[in-house]
Amino acid sequence: MLTSGGDAPGMNAALRAVVLAAEHYDMEVIAFRHGYEGLLDNEYLSLKAADVLHVLQYSGTIIKSARCPRFKEVAAAQLAAENLDALGLSALVVIGGDGSFRGAEHLSQYWQGQIIGVPGTIDNDLYGTDATIGYATAVAIAMDALDKIRDTADAMDRVFIVEVMGRHAGFIGLSSAMAAGAERMILPELQRDKPLTVAALVKHIKRVEAVRGPGSYVMVLSEHQWPGGAVALSEQLEAEFDMPCRPCLLGHIQRGGAPAPSDRILASQLGVHAIELILQGATRVMAGIKANQMVAVPLVDTWTKKNPLDENLLRIQHEIFNPVKKSASKPSQ
Amino acid sequence: MLTSGGDAPGMNAALRAVVLAAEHYDMEVIAFRHGYEGLLDNEYLSLKAADVLHVLQYSGTIIKSARCPRFKEVAAAQLAAENLDALGLSALVVIGGDGSFRGAEHLSQYWQGQIIGVPGTIDNDLYGTDATIGYATAVAIAMDALDKIRDTADAMDRVFIVEVMGRHAGFIGLSSAMAAGAERMILPELQRDKPLTVAALVKHIKRVEAVRGPGSYVMVLSEHQWPGGAVALSEQLEAEFDMPCRPCLLGHIQRGGAPAPSDRILASQLGVHAIELILQGATRVMAGIKANQMVAVPLVDTWTKKNPLDENLLRIQHEIFNPVKKSASKPSQ
Amino acid sequence: MLTSGGDAPGMNAALRAVVLAAEHYDMEVIAFRHGYEGLLDNEYLSLKAADVLHVLQYSGTIIKSARCPRFKEVAAAQLAAENLDALGLSALVVIGGDGSFRGAEHLSQYWQGQIIGVPGTIDNDLYGTDATIGYATAVAIAMDALDKIRDTADAMDRVFIVEVMGRHAGFIGLSSAMAAGAERMILPELQRDKPLTVAALVKHIKRVEAVRGPGSYVMVLSEHQWPGGAVALSEQLEAEFDMPCRPCLLGHIQRGGAPAPSDRILASQLGVHAIELILQGATRVMAGIKANQMVAVPLVDTWTKKNPLDENLLRIQHEIFNPVKKSASKPSQ
Amino acid sequence: MLTSGGDAPGMNAALRAVVLAAEHYDMEVIAFRHGYEGLLDNEYLSLKAADVLHVLQYSGTIIKSARCPRFKEVAAAQLAAENLDALGLSALVVIGGDGSFRGAEHLSQYWQGQIIGVPGTIDNDLYGTDATIGYATAVAIAMDALDKIRDTADAMDRVFIVEVMGRHAGFIGLSSAMAAGAERMILPELQRDKPLTVAALVKHIKRVEAVRGPGSYVMVLSEHQWPGGAVALSEQLEAEFDMPCRPCLLGHIQRGGAPAPSDRILASQLGVHAIELILQGATRVMAGIKANQMVAVPLVDTWTKKNPLDENLLRIQHEIFNPVKKSASKPSQ
Repeated sequence: MLTSGGDAPGMNAALRAVVLAAEHYDMEVIAFRHGYEGLLDNEYLSLKAADVLHVLQYSGTIIKSARCPRFKEVAAAQLAAENLDALGLSALVVIGGDGSFRGAEHLSQYWQGQIIGVPGTIDNDLYGTDATIGYATAVAIAMDALDKIRDTADAMDRVFIVEVMGRHAGFIGLSSAMAAGAERMILPELQRDKPLTVAALVKHIKRVEAVRGPGSYVMVLSEHQWPGGAVALSEQLEAEFDMPCRPCLLGHIQRGGAPAPSDRILASQLGVHAIELILQGATRVMAGIKANQMVAVPLVDTWTKKNPLDENLLRIQHEIFNPVKKSASKPSQ
Repeated sequence: MLTSGGDAPGMNAALRAVVLAAEHYDMEVIAFRHGYEGLLDNEYLSLKAADVLHVLQYSGTIIKSARCPRFKEVAAAQLAAENLDALGLSALVVIGGDGSFRGAEHLSQYWQGQIIGVPGTIDNDLYGTDATIGYATAVAIAMDALDKIRDTADAMDRVFIVEVMGRHAGFIGLSSAMAAGAERMILPELQRDKPLTVAALVKHIKRVEAVRGPGSYVMVLSEHQWPGGAVALSEQLEAEFDMPCRPCLLGHIQRGGAPAPSDRILASQLGVHAIELILQGATRVMAGIKANQMVAVPLVDTWTKKNPLDENLLRIQHEIFNPVKKSASKPSQ
Repeated sequence: MLTSGGDAPGMNAALRAVVLAAEHYDMEVIAFRHGYEGLLDNEYLSLKAADVLHVLQYSGTIIKSARCPRFKEVAAAQLAAENLDALGLSALVVIGGDGSFRGAEHLSQYWQGQIIGVPGTIDNDLYGTDATIGYATAVAIAMDALDKIRDTADAMDRVFIVEVMGRHAGFIGLSSAMAAGAERMILPELQRDKPLTVAALVKHIKRVEAVRGPGSYVMVLSEHQWPGGAVALSEQLEAEFDMPCRPCLLGHIQRGGAPAPSDRILASQLGVHAIELILQGATRVMAGIKANQMVAVPLVDTWTKKNPLDENLLRIQHEIFNPVKKSASKPSQ
Repeated sequence: MLTSGGDAPGMNAALRAVVLAAEHYDMEVIAFRHGYEGLLDNEYLSLKAADVLHVLQYSGTIIKSARCPRFKEVAAAQLAAENLDALGLSALVVIGGDGSFRGAEHLSQYWQGQIIGVPGTIDNDLYGTDATIGYATAVAIAMDALDKIRDTADAMDRVFIVEVMGRHAGFIGLSSAMAAGAERMILPELQRDKPLTVAALVKHIKRVEAVRGPGSYVMVLSEHQWPGGAVALSEQLEAEFDMPCRPCLLGHIQRGGAPAPSDRILASQLGVHAIELILQGATRVMAGIKANQMVAVPLVDTWTKKNPLDENLLRIQHEIFNPVKKSASKPSQ
């Protein structure tokens, strides 16, 4: 087992579940430290139930994670295969995101053991599972920040921009915006279709004020969706439009804190599922959950296919809840 | 619209969604205060978007809730029907649990307007929806309490009992126990099959210690599953078995606090769905969500049919994660 | 060093400070596990800076705590003295409450080394220091519970009783009641003068409602101030006075969670102060803080002298903020 | 009464205390909305106990705040004096920071009524009081962010920079750094003496790693202490020194959330104190607290005199806890 790529809250719950389930089925678990780096460097430790009993309330990963660019090379995958064989291992559980799964698929070309992925990434951008481990916690943290901003925003009637993670997918942005009742979202999915201009944004801010009276205007900005991010956009609004605005950049705060209950429960289910998939002889699949059912998804599908935003959620937050009414046609469903 | 029965975190998000969606579709909303009491007493107010913009971060309900035993009488339902007609209302949205839905069904026999239920209860015990509004928050609060107990339990190697809500259904108990890694659950569903004795419990505590070495033992007890609750069980363990034990009774703490993101999002979806169901001509149904799809469930089904615990979750927490191994047959799936 | 008695949030920050300060001054630290038990059983470990760097964000104590009744015996103190000498130790830092300090004073009769106490107890009941480590966190947790109760209490207009720690001193009760705006407190200090009757309580509840209109009534009850605690008092109000009431028993939740900033800062200061007191040759004193100054208080004073509640705080919460006005004489100061 | 300048968590608790104490002493309270703006525009409302009972758990200010640059003009102060007299008011309580107190002092030259300041600012930069309302909450929020960063930082062994408020005073920076065990602080007070260069910073990062082994390095940066802030410094470390680094900009998050217990208690004490100072005939003073005693400080002192950082705290965090040891002379006290 290893945890790889950006860490995600709930990874500890996942590795705990792997260890407890393995022990339940009389299997032994070795954990490589620092992701694929540890696999290449033969840095590992044996994990027993007693080692992981109470780790599920902490974020991060007790076996550490790392990005490992050199793992793309053939030699690296071959070395990893040799190390796995030398240790007599028959299966590898990789907890991580799409980069980690690409690594797993790459390794599968040089190693005969079973490989199971467990989706651990706050971005929720993997095809084949309704949720990834860490996503719920990231949304909770972003929402909490937005709630705090609202308190002060309401006291001062100002514009605020909160930059959240998710450069390729607006899951955190959309969910936190809806949960906190933000007035505006700037998400990759929306920017792709029709990039927002500052002028259009200012127009919206003014129309919201006209419709609703003075009050706070809180915006959620996905990272990499504006040159210079929240800081630059804030400066533009102030400099060009004399509109008092304050930025906020959550950054890696979104990866920490006590994992949300649903992340711990999801991680527990998927960790057990990974072990049971091994018992069933599966390989090159990701343990996932769809419509409350445990599923196994081919690893390649997880990044080659697209996990779209929930259209109904997007419609509700972007259209129905938009303080500036756009249209009011009957719902088509 | 009204909120009825025990309040649930996210009710404000639900009523906000009802108001925003109604405004979007050019409908007007009147809210009765104190549930059916307000309907009978003609205590109501008009709600506009501006009134509900930033209420979604608070628990409770800004239009207050109440239980209303007298609503079971025919005369009460007739009076309610008259009041609704006198106000020229064409539809009623009831946010609450099974008791509130029984009231709604009762009313439907005397009133011609459309009636839509929105599931708002921390117990998650309604058939037809994957989750009820408030449940996720209650689990988060119970988990947080269990986490805190674990901190101190680990420092002192003791037994702790945390009593949670859910007298008829073990959802909060099971989910919080799994999320916090509790050593034991006493849930209605488990007690029904095979009630636990103190002796059996003590045996389990001792076997866990034997298997795992000294450490903390944290138990989740659903309310009404032990005579005298956590306090009495704790005293029994101390008096009869000389086993240091501390109780904790969460009570209504589980209904408060900032609603969890998933409760706010669920409430937002269901509130909009309720309005759109009205537009579609539906009545005597509950707006629900199943496998990520919005559904409409006959109100009577919500309490006559059973919402069972997730069997896989129960199996994982009760068997796989049980520190005292029972069996290790291969999974049958 | 050892941590003894009931654990308190911030003990880890204190032991970290002891280790970091010791290293700074080229001293070595050995930690006994499980308090005086470890001292008697020679269960100890060496602690270096690297072992304690990031422990300050967790409650509990990484070196475990325990109560040790047998330490009162002469033989125990003599054995402890022998063990300390055998290890060549010149000073002992005891992090704990009054029981732990009595143990330390007892030991000082049989051991020549320096003994420094560090006040670690959530009860804040030690003379000679403005605050003890863990108190601020306990208040924060009690306040958070009271806030959550208020959310739901306001939705339903009911009476709630929250039982908090502090059987001998009402610090947690008073501070959390004031911080959360509770309508009533039942504290040891108030009960001593004039024990409350149920009838008087009911009268107050009704007068509050009369003065203020319907609304929630939240009560803070210190443990051991009512036979049967919050559960029994709640039943009495319901049974005898038909007054809907819900109890809540926080228990050891108050010892867990992330330590409050002020507890971590206090613990850091006192841990360093303990080491610097050793360097200065002090013994049989507690490291404390009074009016922002670091002080050294004779150990015996800490439990023989009384740490009273802040009179101004008590006056404000009990008289000025009491919804039922009693008197309005000019302040005498 | 009015709340002015940047809002601070606990302002609601302060205004609640003012109202409750006023009612206790049979005084009436009128609140101006939006600070001095409301005083100039005659925008006010009457506040009774019932209006403020349960506002103390929320940040922000229910009577809104604002900055009011035009209040520096003589005409503005004269207009304010006229408005106050027209309403028959005999005293004004100003809850705010140094800017607000300058306004109050300015007004006192044109108005005969009593003027009392209540220190409400997260920056803690007012002379004459041990703490200002909002400071403890801001520290708690910054610490929480740092804790979350540590979780993920430990998983990945990286450098992180968290930018906190306090451009003129390092209180939030120092306290949150100590509470969270940060490896480095960049504070106004430290920068003034000896501005840090990137090269020196990189050297420190490397020495910490050399001394302590690989691990996380978390830095607290007070705003306005680095050109371009945390984002720019992070880019410099990455671009010039190939050192992976992630920034985080807390911004106004530090002003929101549930006020910390100590802020609510402080605000309650100071609000009552303000009313009692009025009864005692005081004017042009700030209600403060020093060494647990209520004090009255001339308004002009609050900004003309300097509130220095606690030297002992600074010494502990910057020297004793610095992973890179500098000196180990015996403490001089």
